[in-house]
Amino acid sequence: MSNTVFVKNAAQLITMQGHSEKPAKREAMQNIGLIENGSVLAKDGKIIAVGSEAEIRNAYPEIVVIAKEVNAKGKTVTPGLIDPHTHLVHAGTRENEYAMRLKGKTYMDIMNAGGGIHATTEATQKASFEQLYQESKKRLDTFLLNGVTTVEAKSGYGLTTEHEIKQLEVAEKLNQDHVVDIVSTFMGAHAVPISEKDQPEEFVDKVINEMLPKVAERHLAKFNDVFCERGVFTPEQSRRILEAGKQYGLIPKIHADEIEPYGGAELAAEVGAISADHLLKASEAGIQQMAEKDVVGVLLPGTAFFLMAEFAQARKMIDSGVAVALSTDANPGSSPTLSLQFIMNLGCLKMGMTPEEVITATTMNAAHAIGSAHEVGSLEVGKKADLTIFDVPNYLTLSYQYGMNHVDTVIKNGQIVVEHRHLVTS
Amino acid sequence: MSNTVFVKNAAQLITMQGHSEKPAKREAMQNIGLIENGSVLAKDGKIIAVGSEAEIRNAYPEIVVIAKEVNAKGKTVTPGLIDPHTHLVHAGTRENEYAMRLKGKTYMDIMNAGGGIHATTEATQKASFEQLYQESKKRLDTFLLNGVTTVEAKSGYGLTTEHEIKQLEVAEKLNQDHVVDIVSTFMGAHAVPISEKDQPEEFVDKVINEMLPKVAERHLAKFNDVFCERGVFTPEQSRRILEAGKQYGLIPKIHADEIEPYGGAELAAEVGAISADHLLKASEAGIQQMAEKDVVGVLLPGTAFFLMAEFAQARKMIDSGVAVALSTDANPGSSPTLSLQFIMNLGCLKMGMTPEEVITATTMNAAHAIGSAHEVGSLEVGKKADLTIFDVPNYLTLSYQYGMNHVDTVIKNGQIVVEHRHLVTS
Ligand SMILES: [Zn+2]
Ligand SMILES: [Zn+2]
Repeated sequence: MSNTVFVKNAAQLITMQGHSEKPAKREAMQNIGLIENGSVLAKDGKIIAVGSEAEIRNAYPEIVVIAKEVNAKGKTVTPGLIDPHTHLVHAGTRENEYAMRLKGKTYMDIMNAGGGIHATTEATQKASFEQLYQESKKRLDTFLLNGVTTVEAKSGYGLTTEHEIKQLEVAEKLNQDHVVDIVSTFMGAHAVPISEKDQPEEFVDKVINEMLPKVAERHLAKFNDVFCERGVFTPEQSRRILEAGKQYGLIPKIHADEIEPYGGAELAAEVGAISADHLLKASEAGIQQMAEKDVVGVLLPGTAFFLMAEFAQARKMIDSGVAVALSTDANPGSSPTLSLQFIMNLGCLKMGMTPEEVITATTMNAAHAIGSAHEVGSLEVGKKADLTIFDVPNYLTLSYQYGMNHVDTVIKNGQIVVEHRHLVTS
Repeated sequence: MSNTVFVKNAAQLITMQGHSEKPAKREAMQNIGLIENGSVLAKDGKIIAVGSEAEIRNAYPEIVVIAKEVNAKGKTVTPGLIDPHTHLVHAGTRENEYAMRLKGKTYMDIMNAGGGIHATTEATQKASFEQLYQESKKRLDTFLLNGVTTVEAKSGYGLTTEHEIKQLEVAEKLNQDHVVDIVSTFMGAHAVPISEKDQPEEFVDKVINEMLPKVAERHLAKFNDVFCERGVFTPEQSRRILEAGKQYGLIPKIHADEIEPYGGAELAAEVGAISADHLLKASEAGIQQMAEKDVVGVLLPGTAFFLMAEFAQARKMIDSGVAVALSTDANPGSSPTLSLQFIMNLGCLKMGMTPEEVITATTMNAAHAIGSAHEVGSLEVGKKADLTIFDVPNYLTLSYQYGMNHVDTVIKNGQIVVEHRHLVTS
């Protein structure tokens, strides 16, 4: 009974049905499977019925009667939100750099003051497993309070075999302990460590020959990601790393074309990446190739908002046939938010997406971006009973009443884990 | 004892001390009165001590012992936030217009579909007192959950004497019933009603000769506001209305220079307005005159964000000596947010303000903008014990971790009214 729940009479139930086989593209992104006065019944953590209250009561009278009832009258219910690109596990924060930037300091001023990615790397290397776990757990709680039930989490602030493994172990333990599901990505190629900056090829070799085998052997990651950008890793280095990962069964992802068109989108299509992320400067050809190869485009408008930069061309990508997903990019340098709802706002107000598209982009397409479309991302029979209940009368209000956390209740695996904006502690 | 509270050991206590006499300008806006490991003691709803825990325990041992203790360890405490410009009391929402706009419909398409300000006027006119009260109360609850303890609220969706009075009566009743303080503004001159659009002068006469006397007689408002903009009210009409209000003791405010430079800022200085609001297109001369006459500039960056327009030049205004405050402009058409924290984010990321300035702009300068600087806006002995406790270790994180609601606890008049993100119902 504990995982048996009956969510009834949502003013709007967004099912996202019909998108589990393939990521939604073009007009399909508009199709959010809206049911008015919709209800969902779940048993043993899985969805067993979706429809009207009466239909479900008739079909499953003996289950409805023992289920915990959640009245969603006047509220909007979506699949639990999915954040497909986070740097969840890291130590320390960098609000001081932010303040310096607001006061007119340059990137070089900040680097000279010990800032930038290497500050987080140093803090993460120094942090104990327990410290890293506690800091990351607090962020995961906040994600949940903001309606997210599944997150992808990358390593990449360790940059040595030992510390990359430590980050992934923290993610693994959090995945065991915490109700939010975590899908892990190895990203040893996030940056070349300062101490090795003159031997980037040697560092690439280390990622390939030392880190990848250990990560794979321990089954610590599902994906292998690389920061393909001028001054970080070249397309050729990125290809080597991603192809090597494939030999171990790790699926490629790419941080692509964030600063300049650099062939990242093209490389993603070439190596069969499940997603290419950022894409602010992706080329026409790269966009076309992503569309053809079903590479999900994971857009991270929070970084543009926070760094006061240009936004990715979501409208053009969708119109070109790219399946677009949205994510916070939660990280201490370029996007310290934990609110996927605000990212949805930015999708609408800054990237020309429709209210329907931003929902698709944070549910079903986000699920596809992390290879979890068979079990999450929609409210359909057989899927995990992950639901977010928003205190708004319709889905338009989610981004219309902008800048807010509208979450009232979150159900994960059929259990109420957030109730009236509160974490439910079991 | 019920209103006696001891908030102890905030990692950062932002007192805002020293700004009660005059709005903070230029460098003074940087001075937020930060005390590390700061504590506040309040009795009978008023602050009686601010300092370290030890100092306060020594000075008031017998009060500390009976006070309700609130441990603010690791958290940041500010004066309760103040929103100095809202259209709190109105009926209905306009998310459909928002969706039309995102899908490329023009302003005229929306007007032809029955949208715009007149849609809200119609809904507000039709709404019963009770309906208007309930809708507005829910918004007020949300403001409180987002850390706001005082709001200004305008009429202006009634546009007839009867319905303007109804709006102000709802605000008055909410002020009595709800813990959040409401300061009311009469804004009969928000728009010329459709039915009178060919006789704007007659409508101005009605505002002056019919509405103003009744509002004043009933003491329903402290301020008198007018929408001075081409196609709405001219500077000359605005001057007449504001001068007439002064005869009844109503202090002028102006919606000024939102769409084009129209002399609104200059008029504010001329008539002795307490604030001029919006100011996206305020002229150099207007800005200078506002600085000289201590007119607070209330900036509403949410409208620019939501309408995808340019932002006001906050940096330039502050550098020119204007005391700047920030507000949501909460209204169903151009700014449906209820998050002043997000407005602070925009202040930093879109208007060149510093983290310190945005705090000054939502506490002490906001208090000055609504004539309440003697009782709220800072944590100083004798003021109301209104405190917002944020679950962040320092004030920089408030806008660094953007797009989120960081409120943990809110204390109003010495009582805990929000605890762990929950409304406390007494
Ligand atoms: Zn990233
Ligand atoms: Zn307004």
